[in-house]
Amino acid sequence: MEKVSVLEQEINEQPEAVRRLLDQEIGPVQQLAASLQDRFDYVLIAARGTSDNAARYAQYTFGAYNRLQVALATPSLFTLYERPPLLTGALVIGISQSGQSPDIGAVVAEGRRQGRPTIAITNDRASPLAQAAEYVIPIHAGPERAIAATKTYTTSLAALALFSAALAGDQERLAQLQRLPELMQQTLADLTPVMTRAERYRYMGHCAVIGRGYNFATAFEIALKIKELTRIVAEPYSSADFRHGPIAMVGQGFPVLVVAPRDTVSDDIHGLVADLKGLGAELLLISEDEAVLGQAQLPLSLPPNIPEWLTPLVAVLPGQLFSLALAQAKGLNPDQPAGLKKVTETL
Amino acid sequence: MEKVSVLEQEINEQPEAVRRLLDQEIGPVQQLAASLQDRFDYVLIAARGTSDNAARYAQYTFGAYNRLQVALATPSLFTLYERPPLLTGALVIGISQSGQSPDIGAVVAEGRRQGRPTIAITNDRASPLAQAAEYVIPIHAGPERAIAATKTYTTSLAALALFSAALAGDQERLAQLQRLPELMQQTLADLTPVMTRAERYRYMGHCAVIGRGYNFATAFEIALKIKELTRIVAEPYSSADFRHGPIAMVGQGFPVLVVAPRDTVSDDIHGLVADLKGLGAELLLISEDEAVLGQAQLPLSLPPNIPEWLTPLVAVLPGQLFSLALAQAKGLNPDQPAGLKKVTETL
Repeated sequence: MEKVSVLEQEINEQPEAVRRLLDQEIGPVQQLAASLQDRFDYVLIAARGTSDNAARYAQYTFGAYNRLQVALATPSLFTLYERPPLLTGALVIGISQSGQSPDIGAVVAEGRRQGRPTIAITNDRASPLAQAAEYVIPIHAGPERAIAATKTYTTSLAALALFSAALAGDQERLAQLQRLPELMQQTLADLTPVMTRAERYRYMGHCAVIGRGYNFATAFEIALKIKELTRIVAEPYSSADFRHGPIAMVGQGFPVLVVAPRDTVSDDIHGLVADLKGLGAELLLISEDEAVLGQAQLPLSLPPNIPEWLTPLVAVLPGQLFSLALAQAKGLNPDQPAGLKKVTETL
Repeated sequence: MEKVSVLEQEINEQPEAVRRLLDQEIGPVQQLAASLQDRFDYVLIAARGTSDNAARYAQYTFGAYNRLQVALATPSLFTLYERPPLLTGALVIGISQSGQSPDIGAVVAEGRRQGRPTIAITNDRASPLAQAAEYVIPIHAGPERAIAATKTYTTSLAALALFSAALAGDQERLAQLQRLPELMQQTLADLTPVMTRAERYRYMGHCAVIGRGYNFATAFEIALKIKELTRIVAEPYSSADFRHGPIAMVGQGFPVLVVAPRDTVSDDIHGLVADLKGLGAELLLISEDEAVLGQAQLPLSLPPNIPEWLTPLVAVLPGQLFSLALAQAKGLNPDQPAGLKKVTETL
């Protein structure tokens, strides 16, 4: 019997990790949200890699539900250039599972120096990032041993989702969050067949990954997993940006993975899917919509009735499983991708 | 004799276009800057495609010289989601050469509705974007007929550079700007040999393009030109983000173009170049530093003594010429890339 990889175990732990986060943090995060009311005009997030994709999720969720503009920090201004911007009006959030990267810590420390409210979202509450911030939201993912981040990504999203709902005092969204672990569980269970179909992409040289709105983050995170685990060049785009140039690359057989749940941006995404079909693209589609899935060479099915703002926590799961299965089909070790370390320290 | 493409003509027009912008806008932009003093805490920029890369340049230049935090807008919040954030404290800038894209116009219009100062940077001062904004900075590029943007990119950067210097009342930087057209001219003249060497990449399937700090924007823009003109999958990264995962893709012969002028982030970039060399990567390097260029399979030389904050206006030129030459080597029409329109209207 084949040994189950650590990565696969950690992918499957995600519903439980999100449950743990919700159980332990719903009270503290509501308190935090209350203490921050009216203390800021916009949000500045510092993050790298997978955590940066969590920040992309916050751009849409905080924008749509809290009417907050979110800026993503350019950490080198705070470190290498030593010219930090003035952060008047900002709530500064650092996201890093390890909390070790000096550049993310530097942005949060500068925010605090300037008297701004600061939050660390991290899996290690003893880390330098946690110590630099005024407040900490621990993500409760438990130790993550595979190099590629999975459960620290979805728990970071859950922390941001919880903070957004708490800040708005939105009881309906807090209730929706409670259903999330079950939806994640159901998705993982339904996707087992994918694990064999991924073989079809054994010799794929590159691909594009597309999402928009809330799932712009999902496109980035799935592309990152594909790159980390399979060494295949996978480039993420919003559907709008894809039409602004990169669509020129698409010809017969060009593989495109589209994150396409039924939501506010569906018309735009489905229009692009039709155009890609017309260009002869190979389509890998993540959706709960049978009509959409019917157009795919590889349909990746989601359960029905996921609240739109929570789709990124569910729609990323097929991408994680696909990347794992493809790594295995290529004979690569999913737990230890070549050339990567678990903690990347950048200045 | 081979017919000269429109794209090549427009690439070569850039020094003159930037000169025209400087001659005509230095007075008006200084007036505009004076009228905006103390009216905002941070900058929100809405842009797509090439213009979004210009916005990335503003993140570093406004940050380092004006101590301004720059946020990039997520236009779908303003259009498809119909949930625009509150823009308290923001100066809202829309960048679009055509000024036609409805989503960029929507962000600027919302800024104005909320009583925020708004600026349009555009090549068409009669466009909907120009009409939506309180102020306009025309980029004076003249008609751009090739589908791939070149001179509207560098003139948009020049407009942002001029605005930054004017806002700081920085006479030294205003003087440096005056030298820019000559540096661009010299770069284009010195690069003629590249036009034949690009053949080496005739069968390249994909590549990575890396820059950091000011030239993070350059990496994005060169990658976009490669994709638009050659249909090759080219993915842009900061050196820091590249170490957070994607470096796993690099093996023997993996092509990486690195934008590596001598600057504040050189140590980091040169460290990465050494690591890539160790991994057997094929290196295309843009630099004025002979020691760096000596490590490249394809050295792309810059003139010495470019002021750091202006390197993106010069360092993008080798990337434009390389993309053009590679398109020609592949037998593609550089003026009319398949699947693209000059004006892309997205909501």
